[in-house]
Amino acid sequence: MKLATRLQNLGTETAFAVSLAAAEWGAKGHRIFPFHLGDLNLPTPANIVQAMNQAIADGKTGYCPGAGIMPLREALAADVGQRRGLHFDARNVVIQPGGKPVIGKFIQTVMNPGDEVLYPNPGYPIYESQIDYHGGKAVPYRYIETPTGFALDMRGLESLITPRTRVLIYNNLQNPLSCESSAQEMAALARLAVKHDLWVLSDEAYFEMRYAGQSTSIASLPGMAERTVILYTFSKKFAMTGWRLGAAIAPVPIAEQLAKLNTNDESCTTHFVQYAGLAGLAGPQSGPQAILDVLRERRDACVDGVNAIAGMHAARPESTFYLFVNVTGAMKSKGMTDVAAFATAALHETGVSFCTRRHFGRPQPGETEQYIRLAYSGIATADIREALQRLRDWVGA
Amino acid sequence: MKLATRLQNLGTETAFAVSLAAAEWGAKGHRIFPFHLGDLNLPTPANIVQAMNQAIADGKTGYCPGAGIMPLREALAADVGQRRGLHFDARNVVIQPGGKPVIGKFIQTVMNPGDEVLYPNPGYPIYESQIDYHGGKAVPYRYIETPTGFALDMRGLESLITPRTRVLIYNNLQNPLSCESSAQEMAALARLAVKHDLWVLSDEAYFEMRYAGQSTSIASLPGMAERTVILYTFSKKFAMTGWRLGAAIAPVPIAEQLAKLNTNDESCTTHFVQYAGLAGLAGPQSGPQAILDVLRERRDACVDGVNAIAGMHAARPESTFYLFVNVTGAMKSKGMTDVAAFATAALHETGVSFCTRRHFGRPQPGETEQYIRLAYSGIATADIREALQRLRDWVGA
Repeated sequence: MKLATRLQNLGTETAFAVSLAAAEWGAKGHRIFPFHLGDLNLPTPANIVQAMNQAIADGKTGYCPGAGIMPLREALAADVGQRRGLHFDARNVVIQPGGKPVIGKFIQTVMNPGDEVLYPNPGYPIYESQIDYHGGKAVPYRYIETPTGFALDMRGLESLITPRTRVLIYNNLQNPLSCESSAQEMAALARLAVKHDLWVLSDEAYFEMRYAGQSTSIASLPGMAERTVILYTFSKKFAMTGWRLGAAIAPVPIAEQLAKLNTNDESCTTHFVQYAGLAGLAGPQSGPQAILDVLRERRDACVDGVNAIAGMHAARPESTFYLFVNVTGAMKSKGMTDVAAFATAALHETGVSFCTRRHFGRPQPGETEQYIRLAYSGIATADIREALQRLRDWVGA
Repeated sequence: MKLATRLQNLGTETAFAVSLAAAEWGAKGHRIFPFHLGDLNLPTPANIVQAMNQAIADGKTGYCPGAGIMPLREALAADVGQRRGLHFDARNVVIQPGGKPVIGKFIQTVMNPGDEVLYPNPGYPIYESQIDYHGGKAVPYRYIETPTGFALDMRGLESLITPRTRVLIYNNLQNPLSCESSAQEMAALARLAVKHDLWVLSDEAYFEMRYAGQSTSIASLPGMAERTVILYTFSKKFAMTGWRLGAAIAPVPIAEQLAKLNTNDESCTTHFVQYAGLAGLAGPQSGPQAILDVLRERRDACVDGVNAIAGMHAARPESTFYLFVNVTGAMKSKGMTDVAAFATAALHETGVSFCTRRHFGRPQPGETEQYIRLAYSGIATADIREALQRLRDWVGA
């Protein structure tokens, strides 16, 4: 008996194999420094847990509407709108079991089979997987390394646009690059989206995960609000990755279709978890601030440690909790040409576990530099320092 | 800007409109008796809530594997297997955010566009919606009213099978009919599935929701285990509808694809909720038993009340928490021919709110009898009695 043909086009997150390799190496008694996990090892603020228990005590254990509970939709409309200088109301907000479900549901809502979709590479691998799975043509655009991080290859992106291009996926405050568009870069991208009448997914998972400055949403640029779906998540800001709570903030006709997909796919997002999220938004902001303070310290330890290693360098990002480290020189000095082999050797020689450029899309033609991604969200500052010292000793050996 | 064409094939649960009509009528100051909700108004057992809080205290707030936490997969494999006389292990179990996600993911995994899928009508409306949405041909099969409930129209079903028939959806302990296959009926169905090499979804949401006797899974019949995916849910047994916790129990090749879909669609099911489910399975069974005891009392009040109304009748089902009531005579005595109008009149005259046959699929050619569905899971016994007395007075007036 055969399975359905469509499954041949379904990708996945290959970072899982890194977790497995680390776990296996750890099971042999080796100490592991887990830089591969894009997860937080910090507790969810207590007021959020308390609100969830109050909701359970209040009987919020039955079904709720597919689009989410009204108070959370209203609170998110206000919060997301205020931070972006936009006006939303509850009709624009569709609660989801995490930020990730927005990706596949957005694609199902705006993309026909054969449509071309621009997406970032390196980038979050689920974009490409969902485009392919639903019969679109995934068209990767690039970033270029600069002295301060990475910039979008705007000329390259423009050259990829054809009459079949219909959708743009954009992830400012980017995973894995940690880069942020300049005002000029974002404006240029928005002009392209308007000119070519593209639907836009703005993945804003890290919008509030920043150590200085302020985030801008491409949805707030001229002509963009009516064509943009914002991916919002509680996961990072409130250390709620495993709670599975997020939302799509979308033009009403799209929001209505997303809610219908919810009814078909999972009925609703966990009822009482939505009251927990509401408490996160409405309650004291000392919890999210403390999370950012911890992450800032880790970021600095990570950036300083990496840049002290010969043949490695990374700029100091003001957002996300990743470093995309250029390791071209370090690999040369170890006589290695395969970044996957470099990662395996590093794991076995130092216990430091990380993803590489390959976990964020197939390398594009002409790429010459080698990169790894260090996630510092799941590892204490002292361990970061020790890990990077070990890596330094190994690379220098 | 156009939305994707595929959305034209997406159905929904039209019962939502009934909730809305009831809420609007209630907002005008009328008392509502909510028989339309397939939800429980009973609290989740306390040991389950406690286990969830312990999991949060233990830091289970981050991501977990897409297929679910290993202890829950192992516990479900043992529990589901033992109750069905089958052997499963963790590889067969893929945790989902509810039972419902199994429907769409199963269809994506086994059905190609153009394939014909047999599904029950009257039946849960999401079957048809997901078949249509993913490009299959939805082929409804029927049930026939008998003195003790409803029986599958086996001859009719067999006549629907063509060389393109590839999938059978079966919901024993059926929503909305509450009927149960005899051993003979189930064996005949299994023989057909084997003979025509069909994949089978066995929706067993109500497998343990019974007041006497024992459930049998079609997966336990000869030749069936390797072709059957069981839909399992914690929703009913543990009064956890709003928690969103369920699972697919599937042959390993299918389970692997379902897990890959999880990774793409929602990463994982809420982490700590899985520990709550584990406590439900492993802990004292007094909670689920108390839920069944309450529902049995409600069932009896509901059956007795309905059969005391002239022109209404329903058998006494041993499972689920629905009554599918023949109201042909009552409609005649009210001079009504449209069951939707009958429902609206009943709401306005008595406050009794319910779904009709139309909420469970388009009526099939030749249907002459009229039916409504009463869900007694969300309404106290005393209110059931009062509601049905009101209905009796109105019908008899």
